[in-house]
Formats: sequence, structure tokens, C-alpha cells
Amino acid sequence: MNRKELFRIIQKKKSFLCVGLDTDINKIPAHLHSAEDPVFEFNKQIVDATHEAVVAYKPNLAFYESLGAKGWVSLEKTVNYIRSITSDIFIIADAKRGDIGNTSAMYAQTFFDTYDFDGVTLAPYMGLDTVSPFLEFKEKWSIILALTSNKSASDFQYIEDKNNKPLFENVLKTAKNWGTNDQIMFVVGATKAEALQGIRKIVPDNFLLVPGVGAQGGSLEEVAKYGMNNHCGLLVNSSRGIIYASQGKDFAIVAGEKAVELQQQMEIHLKSFGLI
Amino acid sequence: MNRKELFRIIQKKKSFLCVGLDTDINKIPAHLHSAEDPVFEFNKQIVDATHEAVVAYKPNLAFYESLGAKGWVSLEKTVNYIRSITSDIFIIADAKRGDIGNTSAMYAQTFFDTYDFDGVTLAPYMGLDTVSPFLEFKEKWSIILALTSNKSASDFQYIEDKNNKPLFENVLKTAKNWGTNDQIMFVVGATKAEALQGIRKIVPDNFLLVPGVGAQGGSLEEVAKYGMNNHCGLLVNSSRGIIYASQGKDFAIVAGEKAVELQQQMEIHLKSFGLI
Repeated sequence: MNRKELFRIIQKKKSFLCVGLDTDINKIPAHLHSAEDPVFEFNKQIVDATHEAVVAYKPNLAFYESLGAKGWVSLEKTVNYIRSITSDIFIIADAKRGDIGNTSAMYAQTFFDTYDFDGVTLAPYMGLDTVSPFLEFKEKWSIILALTSNKSASDFQYIEDKNNKPLFENVLKTAKNWGTNDQIMFVVGATKAEALQGIRKIVPDNFLLVPGVGAQGGSLEEVAKYGMNNHCGLLVNSSRGIIYASQGKDFAIVAGEKAVELQQQMEIHLKSFGLI
Repeated sequence: MNRKELFRIIQKKKSFLCVGLDTDINKIPAHLHSAEDPVFEFNKQIVDATHEAVVAYKPNLAFYESLGAKGWVSLEKTVNYIRSITSDIFIIADAKRGDIGNTSAMYAQTFFDTYDFDGVTLAPYMGLDTVSPFLEFKEKWSIILALTSNKSASDFQYIEDKNNKPLFENVLKTAKNWGTNDQIMFVVGATKAEALQGIRKIVPDNFLLVPGVGAQGGSLEEVAKYGMNNHCGLLVNSSRGIIYASQGKDFAIVAGEKAVELQQQMEIHLKSFGLI
């Protein structure tokens, strides 16, 4: 999927919502534990209830890997299920991989060939070598960590160089040239919404994946104000605030309601920017 | 396993060799393809042939993940097999993970609980939050990327701060204080052997995992000269130079010979440093 198609889905659904499928076997409702594959059953019901308000899903791979081989089966079934019910969706492997050479090539093959993800989150520490094998897949995205919203982001991301430029700005400036705007996206945490102004000066046209709205405290209004561009340019993620909004038998219904709430706020922002 | 125990194994085996199990289904000898689990069968024979000369094994997770769920089964069988034949071994998940909070906690649980790895490679970009859940497991190691040996390492790792300190030195200086010398190890590529002198000034006592000897061009002699400390302080990795030294039916025999060659060179260095 290229940038134009992604924008088309955003316009069609009046939403730039990404739902994080951080599916924790210990947090899903008790009545699902008797299902043959509780993690998949949870995801399936969440997807059924939310997909019309949602532009992207983002399974967080740690949660699947922690279950060993059967977690990967649940993941594969989830991706295949999403593909089977809609083609208007972007699926992100939140993997934060960062390796090189043939290892990186194996990862690219895993996520883009073995599984049918549209994008993968990648760590920039090892430089272009990490990303280049992913760029060989056309219509697929490398989603590179730039500014994260966690407390210890400051350990290294804010270290300034001799020109007073923090590391995350150097990452943006260098990595945006590794590929086109149809291939390179950046992760920018929503708790730093003001920082989006400066970030948009460096990467005016790239899509940004913004986690941290909701449970992590970011403001959707500020993110839209400082981060939106003429292709929307934003995928805003919510995980726990949607998928665990209720932990009872009504979990999917409540998740659907929460997703629509966010979609409706997003619709207002898309309208006020003249994008729909 | 703590640092003292790791050093005991090094002394016992007169070796600081780590063998990378970068097991590529497309590179293993043809006659293994009829086995029920070719990847595991390859690893089993490599381990049988090499373990007496080897201190550590390092499965590179990308190769297993690229096979989907069955790759994880092969990985689990490999770890369990190594544990079943020897207790004098250190097993590293070369995962280069870098996430935070509950995600990072899930990864720690995966590698240290679900699987019985001794250490995991971690990317430092997101700071302490990435590492702290791993540090809660006693006798387990966080192996943090500092200076990597790939070409594009210079994209970010060499960016100097206002005090002329490159990023990788800032990573070493900050991360060594996140835990004890029994928990924190650093990845330092062997193609930069001279750089080990400067690195040892910052982290005199930490173990270093050094990839890149052999196929990637590093010199074992230089690594020992600049990197060895009074606990040896080095795990030197070789992957392709051992496991793919022959691609015929004799692959395991040849791998065993290559491992012993390296072990014998290491024995000379350990003796000349008075460590055995």
C-alpha cells in the first residue's frame, strides 16, 4: 500500500485510528479461555467490532512471542482474518527490530512474505543497514523509531550534537532520505505533541505513527494540530484504552464504542483541516 | 549464571568462543531436508560436534522467526537439547529487542522464562526502560548494543556530543550503571579492535560480546590484545565460519574442527594473559 492508498482509506473511514493488538493472555475476559485459541478469538471479536472505524491494526509482537510457537499461530491467524474481512486496512508488525545484513533480510521476509504485514517498526541504532532489506519490498513500510514517549527516551534520544541537534532529529534527517514517502514512516510519541511542530519542519511529508494517545496521556487535539499534513500524515494508536475498555463479556461491544468515539473526534480534525 | 561462573567455564574449556546458530533452512546440507525438523537436526549435530570447545551458543532469532511457528519449535528444541547435554554453557538469544514497559516485560518473560536463555541482545535507543524488566531476572544478562561492526554503524553511533563523545561511548557510560557486571554485557564489533582500548577505559569490568571475527574480518589477536580483562571479559562469536565451513555431509565434523582451531588460538591468548 502506498501513501495515496493509505490516505484514501483515511478519507473513506474518516479516521486515522490504529488499534494496538497488545493481546495479553492474562488480561482477556475469562469466558474466552475455553476457546481453542483464546488470543485469536479475542482479536477476532475486537476486529469484528472495530474495523469500520479503524485504519490500521498493530499487533505488538512481544505478546505473541511470549506464548512461544502457539503465539505465532495466533498472530498468523489474526493477520489472515483481518485480510479476509477487509482490504481497506493497514497492518503493522510492532516488532522494533534492528539488525543487519542477512538477519535483517530474514526479518523483512518474515514480516512481508511469510506474514502479510504492510509495515514493521524498526530501531535506528545500527543505521541504514537495518532498514535497507525492508525497502526492497515495494508497497511496504519501514516505520522507524525517532522520538519515543517513554521516560528514559531522554537517555540517548535527546543527546545534542555540536550543532545543538538532538539525536532524534539526526535520525529523522538521515532516515528520511533512505526511501520515499511511500516507504518511510516515523514513530513519534504523543506525550511530546509540541515537538511535532519541529518534527514537521524536518519531515513535512512522511507519515507519523503516534502511540501514547489515551492511556499514555497524549492529547489527540494537539497531535492533530501540530502533526497533520495534506495527506493527514498521522496514524494515531490506542491499545489498552480500546481493547481493555471492558474486561467483561461485553469487551468487544465496548471496544467498538471506544473506537467510534475516537473516530468521531478524528473526523472533526480531518474536516477542520479540509481533508474530507 | 553470574560473571564468576562464566569465567569458570572459560577457564575449564580454555575458550571464549561463542558459536552463532544462524541456521538458514536454505543453507543447510541437502541430506538434512528429509529430517522431521531439519533446522533442529542441523543444530543438534553442530552442538554435538562443537560443545566441548565452546562457551556460548547464540541462536539468531531472525532465522527461526522467518519460518513462522515451526521455527520457534526448532528454537525451543535447540535450547532444550543444549541444556540436556551440558550445564557448562551460556545461551544467548540474539534478538536485538528494544521496547518498553509491559512489552519489554513480556520479552524478558519469553526469553528467560518460556525459553531458558542466559542473555538477550538489546538495542539501547529507548533507554533504561528497555532494559529494566530484563534486570529483574537474577543471573540473567542484558547484552546491549554499543558499537556494531556494520558499515552504517556510523550513521548514528559515531555522532559526537558537545564534549566530542560519540553516541556509542554515551551508551557505554550510561548503560554500565543500569546494573551490575553480572548482568550487563555489551556488543562491540571486532572490526573496530583498536576501539576496544578506549572502550575498556569506560567499561573495564563488563563482559563484551564480540561478533565479526572470521567472516566479517576481525582479528582474534587484536580483540584479545585490546579487550581482555582479568575475567577474560570476552565472548567472541563466529557463525558462518563454523556452521557453514562445509555444506556437505561432513558439515558437523568440519564445524567441530573449526571450533577447535579457534579454541586453540583462544587458549594461547588466555595463557599469555595468565588467566589459565
